[in-house]
Amino acid sequence: MFEIIRRDGLARIGKFTTRAGVLETPALLPVVNPKIFTVTPRELHEEFGFEALITNSYIIRSSEDLRKRAQSEGLRTLLDFPGIVMTDSGTFQSHMYGEVEVTNEEIIEFQKSIGSDIGTVLDIFTEPFWTKSETAASIDVTLERTEYAASVKDEMMIAGVVQGSVYPDLREMCARRMRSMDIDVHPIGGVVPLMEQYRYEELVDVIISSKKGLSPDRPVHLFGAGHPMILSLAVLLGCDMFDSASYAKFARDDRIMFIDGTYRLEDMLSLDCKCPACIGHTLETLKALSKDERTRTIARHNLYEITKELALIRRYILEGRLWELAEQRCRAHPELLGALRKLGEHGEFLERHEPLSRDGAMFYTGTETRNRPVFRRYRERLKERYIPFTRKAALFPEAGRPYGRHYAEDFRRVRSSGFTPVVLSPFGPVPAELDEIYPLAQSLFPGITDAETDACVKDAVSLIREKGYEEIIDMNSVTDGNEIFDPLLERALAVARYQFGAEAAAAMFSGRMEFVTSRNTGKIRNVISNGEHILSMRAGDGLFSLRIEGAERMIASVPGEHMRVVVSDDAIPFVSEGRNVFCAFVKECDPEIRPMEEVLAVNGNGKLLAVGRAMLVRDEMLSFKKGIAVKVRDGVGKV
Amino acid sequence: MFEIIRRDGLARIGKFTTRAGVLETPALLPVVNPKIFTVTPRELHEEFGFEALITNSYIIRSSEDLRKRAQSEGLRTLLDFPGIVMTDSGTFQSHMYGEVEVTNEEIIEFQKSIGSDIGTVLDIFTEPFWTKSETAASIDVTLERTEYAASVKDEMMIAGVVQGSVYPDLREMCARRMRSMDIDVHPIGGVVPLMEQYRYEELVDVIISSKKGLSPDRPVHLFGAGHPMILSLAVLLGCDMFDSASYAKFARDDRIMFIDGTYRLEDMLSLDCKCPACIGHTLETLKALSKDERTRTIARHNLYEITKELALIRRYILEGRLWELAEQRCRAHPELLGALRKLGEHGEFLERHEPLSRDGAMFYTGTETRNRPVFRRYRERLKERYIPFTRKAALFPEAGRPYGRHYAEDFRRVRSSGFTPVVLSPFGPVPAELDEIYPLAQSLFPGITDAETDACVKDAVSLIREKGYEEIIDMNSVTDGNEIFDPLLERALAVARYQFGAEAAAAMFSGRMEFVTSRNTGKIRNVISNGEHILSMRAGDGLFSLRIEGAERMIASVPGEHMRVVVSDDAIPFVSEGRNVFCAFVKECDPEIRPMEEVLAVNGNGKLLAVGRAMLVRDEMLSFKKGIAVKVRDGVGKV
Repeated sequence: MFEIIRRDGLARIGKFTTRAGVLETPALLPVVNPKIFTVTPRELHEEFGFEALITNSYIIRSSEDLRKRAQSEGLRTLLDFPGIVMTDSGTFQSHMYGEVEVTNEEIIEFQKSIGSDIGTVLDIFTEPFWTKSETAASIDVTLERTEYAASVKDEMMIAGVVQGSVYPDLREMCARRMRSMDIDVHPIGGVVPLMEQYRYEELVDVIISSKKGLSPDRPVHLFGAGHPMILSLAVLLGCDMFDSASYAKFARDDRIMFIDGTYRLEDMLSLDCKCPACIGHTLETLKALSKDERTRTIARHNLYEITKELALIRRYILEGRLWELAEQRCRAHPELLGALRKLGEHGEFLERHEPLSRDGAMFYTGTETRNRPVFRRYRERLKERYIPFTRKAALFPEAGRPYGRHYAEDFRRVRSSGFTPVVLSPFGPVPAELDEIYPLAQSLFPGITDAETDACVKDAVSLIREKGYEEIIDMNSVTDGNEIFDPLLERALAVARYQFGAEAAAAMFSGRMEFVTSRNTGKIRNVISNGEHILSMRAGDGLFSLRIEGAERMIASVPGEHMRVVVSDDAIPFVSEGRNVFCAFVKECDPEIRPMEEVLAVNGNGKLLAVGRAMLVRDEMLSFKKGIAVKVRDGVGKV
Repeated sequence: MFEIIRRDGLARIGKFTTRAGVLETPALLPVVNPKIFTVTPRELHEEFGFEALITNSYIIRSSEDLRKRAQSEGLRTLLDFPGIVMTDSGTFQSHMYGEVEVTNEEIIEFQKSIGSDIGTVLDIFTEPFWTKSETAASIDVTLERTEYAASVKDEMMIAGVVQGSVYPDLREMCARRMRSMDIDVHPIGGVVPLMEQYRYEELVDVIISSKKGLSPDRPVHLFGAGHPMILSLAVLLGCDMFDSASYAKFARDDRIMFIDGTYRLEDMLSLDCKCPACIGHTLETLKALSKDERTRTIARHNLYEITKELALIRRYILEGRLWELAEQRCRAHPELLGALRKLGEHGEFLERHEPLSRDGAMFYTGTETRNRPVFRRYRERLKERYIPFTRKAALFPEAGRPYGRHYAEDFRRVRSSGFTPVVLSPFGPVPAELDEIYPLAQSLFPGITDAETDACVKDAVSLIREKGYEEIIDMNSVTDGNEIFDPLLERALAVARYQFGAEAAAAMFSGRMEFVTSRNTGKIRNVISNGEHILSMRAGDGLFSLRIEGAERMIASVPGEHMRVVVSDDAIPFVSEGRNVFCAFVKECDPEIRPMEEVLAVNGNGKLLAVGRAMLVRDEMLSFKKGIAVKVRDGVGKV
């Protein structure tokens, strides 16, 4: 049903297959009022390319005429929309007006009867001002109704709404309890008041706690989120679907959406938009239109602004740079900046989904960039996996990257005195052996630092002390010496420990070691141990690709699940001959595997089948029915 | 010639009047190669609305055919362009190829002969890698050539290029020495290598040092700056004109400009642009165009991207929010972020041009927002102009704004015990009396703070200690008491001191004081002293408008230039009857006056003529020939 095509952390480009067609996510579903079309559904499809829309089954049911037509013709004909039609249930009306005159059973049955492709449960809207016990009680009702809806859905897909007000533990519990139900898509509900009140920090907690509970193989829909300003952040946190009634509602109030906020037509001082709806208009000509024409023009502008941002988000995901887009967008309002800062409290969850490396350089856009999981990961792996090669460390200040090139002469000098060169970088201390891995070499910082970065650099010294060096000196006071050291070995071993852990690295680095280096750059290409090619280093991110020989050593020496993906029996012949591992054939998986990490595909007895890169984390591999779990590089051959 | 219509700090919307028409600034002049039109000059005018362009007189002169046609038909006919034509002199060619075969005299004469509206001196391009003495020597030549050009210009306007490599003192000196020459527009030259190498921090120094030296009544042109990414920052620093050859040059290399950077067509993963040039295209169809068609399409896209950003910049200036746009844009690249941080080193110059208040709220977009001059100004005026009303201070933590509303009950309680409530805010300590003035009440910060803000709040306590309070307590340990205090008087007096200085405030607040307050909000509206209405408080920014009676007291008690603008004799009858003061009639002015500050218009003997708000600072008032210097609110009547 739902498949990941590309990912960037929690963000994903996906394909959601329905009976009425495939929806590419991230996607926004415009909300269509069945009584008034500000922009017709056909235009939404043909001019704007929307593959799906939402309309309200409660409103249709409440009008005799619409109800009869919907039941006889079906929704697609009623709306004249050739794509996917999702229906809402009346829950939002109960939030607005206190109650609705329909039961969950009735509205589910009605949605089926009018041919909705995705029907929604009549869940209970948990208001942000509710007490925790009030919220918990209402979730029980929502879960009961959801279970009922899932059990009678037949051909209709079911949207099971996660509720829980502003209580993260209730959100996670609600989401987790829906895992076992037969649900197709999960809206996160009850968030419109938070967005209306700019309570974006709480919105972050709500989204992340829901994501923690939900099954990753189902698309997540942020109900009522339609402002382009918020989309990149929501996608970054793993939301796949959105909807917008605002494009039309705002237009009726003469409010124009831009990526940096919403402007009232009467307050605007100039119109500076060249979208297909605005082109040819000045502020004056737009104001002079008839009310209907103006509403239609502004609604079309709003839709262009939304589709433009979604296309941009898609591009940034493809480029692996969505963090950077979200960091730019969150400057549009201080409360959005607060939301960005809030991510710092969710480092562990974010790190679990963060790819091992990316294609491009990491741009530092401000102190908030420190919330990116790469900072946390580097620090933790340095603590757990880095083992000093010498008893003495020489500290160097931050400089051009990679440091080994910038400090070439200095590094040689201190190394020959038995010191490990360590740069006090904005990521923390960087021993010379690690200076080429992502993101240490592949990152750009401004020349003028901030207090957070200064504190991190200062703290780097204490991190180095914890490593147990006997002597730590400043780079300027080094005297010449003549100890033996092997920079290639130390770099290769430090990177292998960083990437695979100390135990696995020790298993691979045994016997006589040789290094094939690049003639041009002098960088390590291949690592040979006792004549076997065990690892290849990638020039782009400075990390290793695992070879079959290296993997066999890891299997032999490190027991347990470490870096393993267990493949089910029917897939063994394919995987061992080098075909990719698909999700449907993953039996188990090391929970410590991160996206883009090197992994070992093994059979149920732990025998090696292939090596490759993980595309997904454990929870995802075990949830998805479709899609690639491991991109295999090499199989062991026929088994 | 050049007139300011609206300003936002150093940024300005201006009108530059030439013989060929009026150029609205900020403006970009597309560079047109006289040999190849990627987009024709007529299209630049009619499709894109460009009022001016640049072409290269050196290239025209070097081609026999073009030279003859230009001299017989004139440039406007040769190019078929109905707007303003500026010409470049060959300096950039000397930077590119080492030297040019023309003298300054020849190229000036040639530019006149082909009817250039704005001709450029053959200045010497100061490379960023030049030594200081080398640079200084070349500036002497440039100045000599510029003086010559200005002396023979006749009807042609002259662009006098500021040079000085990366040496701020040389830039300022060069600019200052051009003040006395008859020059019409000042390009800042020699900056292309800085922009190509992303050396934006140095670019900031170059622009600001040039601005410091230049006469403010002449437009400033940042030579070679054409990427939309850099425009908002450059306008923020007071650049009025730009040019772009890149729109076409990049297009020929299949490079597409976006606000967040330049992308190679071959690296792009999707095309997400709905500009009039791109609409209907996908990445595939764009790639499939013939080389010429593709170049033309990308060039038109690049021009749309530039004009869109310029329109946006204009809107943000009108809204008084250009800082916020620049702060968003500078997240696109870490070196741009460095440039934004660099502004912190130029606080004094920036503060001098910073308006006293703005219409909208100030948005905090990150630690870099602390570089905004409002932070510096508040801190300095607090130190110099705030005088405690009590000997005891009660410190409150940051809260909802205005603090007096948030802490209403608490403030009353501590005041009744003889304490002045002081909030430890992100701006520093805010005594209760000042809590409604701009930007203290009119600002939004994220809920989660950063280290810089935390440090500022901490430092606020020591700032309060310097004020000489005998007792400073934490808000939680206050006991009830019963001293007499007058919150209206204290607020009015504290704001008057902040705005006009302690001496002027003392002069105005004498005798029996009364306060007219708003029935709804309880806020001060009018201040009455001995029966005279001396001041009115604005609800928007919490600051005072000065009344004639208040102004007369200031005149009587504070001697010297303080807050005065001296009007020349011929304007006296008009100003005293309430007409605005135009620049041409300003004889002298207090250098401490900031934009939007309340000022006194006086005659040569110091007699009051009118009160109003300054639009400009001293240097600007004395330089400009056109435009409003003081918006007069009230005149003293016929004199």
